[in-house]
Amino acid sequence: MKKSLGAKTLLFPTPVLMVGTYDRTGKPNLMNAAWGGICCSQPPCVAVSLRKARYSYDCIVERKAFTVGIACEARMAEADYVGIASGRDVDKFAVSGLTPVRSDLVDAPYAAEFPLVLECRLLHTLEIGLHTQFIGEIIDVKADDDVLGDDGHPDIMKISPLIYDTARKGYHGVGPLLGRAFSVGKTKG
Amino acid sequence: MKKSLGAKTLLFPTPVLMVGTYDRTGKPNLMNAAWGGICCSQPPCVAVSLRKARYSYDCIVERKAFTVGIACEARMAEADYVGIASGRDVDKFAVSGLTPVRSDLVDAPYAAEFPLVLECRLLHTLEIGLHTQFIGEIIDVKADDDVLGDDGHPDIMKISPLIYDTARKGYHGVGPLLGRAFSVGKTKG
Repeated sequence: MKKSLGAKTLLFPTPVLMVGTYDRTGKPNLMNAAWGGICCSQPPCVAVSLRKARYSYDCIVERKAFTVGIACEARMAEADYVGIASGRDVDKFAVSGLTPVRSDLVDAPYAAEFPLVLECRLLHTLEIGLHTQFIGEIIDVKADDDVLGDDGHPDIMKISPLIYDTARKGYHGVGPLLGRAFSVGKTKG
Repeated sequence: MKKSLGAKTLLFPTPVLMVGTYDRTGKPNLMNAAWGGICCSQPPCVAVSLRKARYSYDCIVERKAFTVGIACEARMAEADYVGIASGRDVDKFAVSGLTPVRSDLVDAPYAAEFPLVLECRLLHTLEIGLHTQFIGEIIDVKADDDVLGDDGHPDIMKISPLIYDTARKGYHGVGPLLGRAFSVGKTKG
């Protein structure tokens, strides 16, 4: 018999997404979003949800583009900082020492220090409630060489992505490989 | 200088969501979805994306409800199995030994064996491309007593949720707490 916890945004895991945008003056901004995930394979799309009050909101609406960097253990403090400060008040890249890089494909910047980034063109905007969901078509994924395996694919253990705990608001890391998908379940069939 | 990997659905981490539905005959079904996440705080909402070809697709459209269970390490084989078999061919609950429980709030079942479940009412349907995104309003979250901490909140380490690696199609676990959100970043400001 399970216990009722009420209508809450509890999900495990959620990602720690570094959403990169330019404001109307061209200042780069970065925010921290845990409300998001992949939402389509063809075209490849990622969804991120933002409150209208966030500085990044108008940036995405106006530029119709954003980037999604993957926050990593080595940059946990920077990742958390961009979730505390607002681009309305400060240049978060300058204050935190992150390096803005202009995407060569979409009108948005990303931080060089995060090992993997998705460059996105705004495809859909859905008003849900307190949050608005932006769906971006992934135009390209770029990664640092040192997080790629010998097979050329990103290695999740080298990326060391952060996980956000929706219940206790903590950051966790990823543990080792437990099993292969589309494989370990065959014993049950 | 980052290396281009092309337009791919690479995101770290993604969840392993057990989407529970009833078909038109009342047979319970469960599928495995990694394309999803929280998308709104008020009302609390979760998004899951499915291909039209999936058996669960019509179930959600017809019943306007679904549940989202959190796959856990102890049930990795069952979680993977429901991503391999189709409800069109088999009763996945019966074959895998999972116990269907009828939600008392929405017209959908969940598997008793997964420690935490979100009961959802369909709120929005968005056709994106190969995948359709279903947004469910979270009506309640239910959890097993043994994954709750002394404070009554779910403990991510007790849930032991699975993580799906989009690059190599593996399942991973969650590592220990690394830091507190809205806190560790203060050193950068």
